[in-house]
Amino acid sequence: MRQNIYLSNISLNEAINIFLEKIKDFKVETEYVKTYEANGRITAKPIFAKISSPFYNSSAVDGIATVAKKTFTATDKNPVRLKEGVDYVVVDTGDPIPDEYDCVIMVEDLIWVSQDEVEIIKPAIPWQNIRQIGEDIVEGQLILPQSHRIRPVDIGALIAGGVFEVEVYKKPKVAIIPTGTEIVEPGEELKVGDIIEFNSRVFAAQVEEYGGIPTRFDIVKDDFEKLKDVVDQASREYDIILLNAGSSAGREDYSKKVIETLGEVYIHGVAIKPGKPVILGRVNNKPIVGIPGFPVSAYFIMENIVKKLVNFVQGYDRKDKRYIEATLSKRIMSSPKYLEFVRVKLGFIDGKYIAAPIERGAGTTMSLVRADGVLEIPEELEGYEKGTRVNVNILKSEDEIKNTILCIGSHDLILDIAADLLAKGGKFTLSSAHVGSMGGILSLKDRETHFATIHLLDVETGEYNKSYVKRYIPNRKIALIKFVKRIQGLMVKKGNPLEINSLEDIVKKGARFVNRQKGSGTRILLDYELKRLGINPKDIIGYEREEYTHISVAAQIAKGNADAGLGVFSAAKIMDLDFIPIANEDYDIAIPVEYLELDGVKQFLEVINSEEFKNELDKLGGYDYSNLGEIIIIE
Amino acid sequence: MRQNIYLSNISLNEAINIFLEKIKDFKVETEYVKTYEANGRITAKPIFAKISSPFYNSSAVDGIATVAKKTFTATDKNPVRLKEGVDYVVVDTGDPIPDEYDCVIMVEDLIWVSQDEVEIIKPAIPWQNIRQIGEDIVEGQLILPQSHRIRPVDIGALIAGGVFEVEVYKKPKVAIIPTGTEIVEPGEELKVGDIIEFNSRVFAAQVEEYGGIPTRFDIVKDDFEKLKDVVDQASREYDIILLNAGSSAGREDYSKKVIETLGEVYIHGVAIKPGKPVILGRVNNKPIVGIPGFPVSAYFIMENIVKKLVNFVQGYDRKDKRYIEATLSKRIMSSPKYLEFVRVKLGFIDGKYIAAPIERGAGTTMSLVRADGVLEIPEELEGYEKGTRVNVNILKSEDEIKNTILCIGSHDLILDIAADLLAKGGKFTLSSAHVGSMGGILSLKDRETHFATIHLLDVETGEYNKSYVKRYIPNRKIALIKFVKRIQGLMVKKGNPLEINSLEDIVKKGARFVNRQKGSGTRILLDYELKRLGINPKDIIGYEREEYTHISVAAQIAKGNADAGLGVFSAAKIMDLDFIPIANEDYDIAIPVEYLELDGVKQFLEVINSEEFKNELDKLGGYDYSNLGEIIIIE
Repeated sequence: MRQNIYLSNISLNEAINIFLEKIKDFKVETEYVKTYEANGRITAKPIFAKISSPFYNSSAVDGIATVAKKTFTATDKNPVRLKEGVDYVVVDTGDPIPDEYDCVIMVEDLIWVSQDEVEIIKPAIPWQNIRQIGEDIVEGQLILPQSHRIRPVDIGALIAGGVFEVEVYKKPKVAIIPTGTEIVEPGEELKVGDIIEFNSRVFAAQVEEYGGIPTRFDIVKDDFEKLKDVVDQASREYDIILLNAGSSAGREDYSKKVIETLGEVYIHGVAIKPGKPVILGRVNNKPIVGIPGFPVSAYFIMENIVKKLVNFVQGYDRKDKRYIEATLSKRIMSSPKYLEFVRVKLGFIDGKYIAAPIERGAGTTMSLVRADGVLEIPEELEGYEKGTRVNVNILKSEDEIKNTILCIGSHDLILDIAADLLAKGGKFTLSSAHVGSMGGILSLKDRETHFATIHLLDVETGEYNKSYVKRYIPNRKIALIKFVKRIQGLMVKKGNPLEINSLEDIVKKGARFVNRQKGSGTRILLDYELKRLGINPKDIIGYEREEYTHISVAAQIAKGNADAGLGVFSAAKIMDLDFIPIANEDYDIAIPVEYLELDGVKQFLEVINSEEFKNELDKLGGYDYSNLGEIIIIE
Repeated sequence: MRQNIYLSNISLNEAINIFLEKIKDFKVETEYVKTYEANGRITAKPIFAKISSPFYNSSAVDGIATVAKKTFTATDKNPVRLKEGVDYVVVDTGDPIPDEYDCVIMVEDLIWVSQDEVEIIKPAIPWQNIRQIGEDIVEGQLILPQSHRIRPVDIGALIAGGVFEVEVYKKPKVAIIPTGTEIVEPGEELKVGDIIEFNSRVFAAQVEEYGGIPTRFDIVKDDFEKLKDVVDQASREYDIILLNAGSSAGREDYSKKVIETLGEVYIHGVAIKPGKPVILGRVNNKPIVGIPGFPVSAYFIMENIVKKLVNFVQGYDRKDKRYIEATLSKRIMSSPKYLEFVRVKLGFIDGKYIAAPIERGAGTTMSLVRADGVLEIPEELEGYEKGTRVNVNILKSEDEIKNTILCIGSHDLILDIAADLLAKGGKFTLSSAHVGSMGGILSLKDRETHFATIHLLDVETGEYNKSYVKRYIPNRKIALIKFVKRIQGLMVKKGNPLEINSLEDIVKKGARFVNRQKGSGTRILLDYELKRLGINPKDIIGYEREEYTHISVAAQIAKGNADAGLGVFSAAKIMDLDFIPIANEDYDIAIPVEYLELDGVKQFLEVINSEEFKNELDKLGGYDYSNLGEIIIIE
């Protein structure tokens, strides 16, 4: 067998410390840049003011500059009269104060008796309203220490202090080398087995955000000599090398050998998940990082190691992860062998943040797009119980999270349409976590979502949703907002080659079925119908095979991996499948009555009641929205 | 009088709402850009996946692809033997699964019996370890809604979903026009009355951070026709116009007239402080903002109005201010007429954030450099009491704040030197708020600082510091770390023209004195000496004139605004003044014993005990460091 797994499993911090210690003698060079072009750069030296600011005494207000002594006797009853040119000059804010004057009286305190005479009714204090020399910056004063990232406000102070050029570290040049025979450039014709290369594009954007200059290399196919040459050359011209080395253990060894041949591997394998098989080494005195191919692993290696590295070679060692405290909406297990990064959705419900864990796979790019934050479960822990207060590294601003309407429940395509229309307003976001109808009900009960989308069939009464809300959420006053009736039906390949026209046919024709997950409304409907028809689930091939959305069920059928599945019309339509209606179901919104007053919820309700939204439903087809917006209070 | 003050005083939010409503029909155009170049851009349309990812079934692990049914009987005792090419193929992670296979068994679960035969001891489940088609992204799925700011992870998902170009808003082109006859370009020869132009450079860096493209215009001198032409031309070519219009009320009217002549002024004056005299209007259908000249006012207008504007013309309306909850270290008053922005220092002491207000002037660029955060005091409030929990908009990362050692107390230049050497380590920062020795003692008592720098003379015993710590901080165990002995003396103009050789001479020669603020150690020393010598403070001209640092006292004397002041040798040296020693004083560090264990404090103590630091002290002169580092525990 070709695999050769001998990864180390040291902690992230230990690995970083070893790595940085090994490469600590390498720093990028410094350069002088114009102060006004230095934003974001790291100072190489402390910077001292060359001149004072202001460098002359100036007026802090609009008024007259005069001599305080002359005003000492001024009262309401005995005003002091002053004459322009003799006793005062008019000054605007910022004007220099002539040497003979020692205070400024502001315009609001002046009584004009003629064009060039004023009266004063209270004495002035020496130096009042005067910005004295050096009030802001004193010549010789430290403006910025070394190892400081220059911000816009710093640019102002530097120029005010007479510093027009600053010595900063050069931006690290980062070579990004994608490798692998299976990866292809976007736009090339795709064959089975091809993977579109995109990690390097994500890295480039990240490196730019970290303050480096990314250069993305052409894809290097799996050819040891070729890769060795490219890495060798890159390490001479660039400051940091990132080798994105496919996702298999075999492929990593390949990267590892190249690094070993040209230089040294310090670390192979870090106890984090996702992200474990990272390689940290050095080639031609330059730090090199072998980054795993799985996009989520790659992301966490970039954020936790490469970001630090880009800072470190500029003598800068600060983190800027942002954390908030949130309540965990469900129990989450983790291996005590790893520091695990768990992506979460965040909502701000009843004044506290709620963190709802989402997908944990290393390959799902969408999980990162959908994530609002990352929960870091330390190595020594086996996980967290539901309800634990945890620190979450947030990926959005708190304002964005607070303007997010959280929906936990059953998924339907129309939620994406509504989310997009809501986003168009520019302010509120709809964030939906797909956990099925029952998951939504439980989140409502535990105050972990703004609303739940549900389609739960009461198998006793044949009625949808009401009885579930009543039974499972006795502690809250819930409104049921009628959303849509949707047609559930069997999705089959275009042309219906197996001639499936009912659930019975699935068994009869021996069709390969693809199911929805337990607890989902569609699953309950299926089981209800199977029972009604006296069909044993065991007789359905693929009954155990679970997908989490309508559209992923449709996709399986479209690609020929299954023959039939139960789902909504719109999913069948998008995937160009035939559709055999089985039942109508009520897909509704359950929401605590008090949340109806939230601005974001109001705007969401406006969106779903709009003509624009209904037009979109028509385009999708398979929805009846005649009751849309009706509100039933469940007591 | 030329001033013409008729500012409105509406609230910030109201002003923004009126302004945005007036200009809401203006948006920048959209354009198509390559997905990998779209980081930070705002989507103009929702973006849907063009292909599924993966678009074929692939292996999620390294192992063999086989048929699950063949393994159903496998147990420890009755292993199932499989043959390569017949029963399985070897697959690496990511490899496509040939149609005839339906599961993958990972390499760890294989027992190799020959090069091409394996044994299995437990059955496989259909679809195990297979990444199914569309597992990550399904064709037609919404990847990003409109009005979404594209992040690096989004780029990955877009490319994976077959989207190689995206429609985004063009980056708004922002014209920055500095105006005023008194402002000069950096590097020009400076005359009294000149102001070096730097606001536009700060704006440009800010605009870039907001996602716009700044263009900085040449300075326009005060010439109505000229300015009108420039604004008119700019409003045809740019999307947003920023007019930085000097700081006087007279000057604003000037900008206002230009805008009124060419277009319309909607708002002049907003109830915020600093920042009040802002102008919001429109010229040639483009939004224009007249920004006050005071740098701090300008900063808050940029952060609170222009940032929103740059987002708004791209259909984006989200804030990303970051707040933390902090305890206010002293009472702060504010006018209920304004929303006031108060700059604060932040420290993380005993597990909670402490906010210490600093300067409040609108002209001090250094106050923004020094600030760690901004406390926003709402209009309706008259301020906050000491100890109030307040929300602070942070300007640094929480990590940076947590790695900040906070020093509240008496200022000395050597603190800046130590701060710079500490910063060199790249991790910890020393942040010092200058409130004098007694202020430091009180902050220690109230657990609001890590340590205090003090030089407090006990006028009964003639001894420094100990008795104050004992008396004023009875609740904590404090260590007094001996820092330096420094020579306090009279600073006078080079050559000592008034022949001042003692404090008595100040009175005798009628010299203009400049004093330090009440509560400062230098002030206490002065009063002690005056009493001892029987001098009445009232006989000293300028006794009431207070400066907050040694160096600002020195600067006043250097520029001829005063004849003498009491301070340390180093300040006199930097400002090239003569120095007449008066007394030696002990400048020490008072620190709670438990803080000696903090990493940042340890590193700070290393810094001040280092040869490098002592060399710097030698260069400054006037310090005796023979006891440096000695620790006295005060019980």
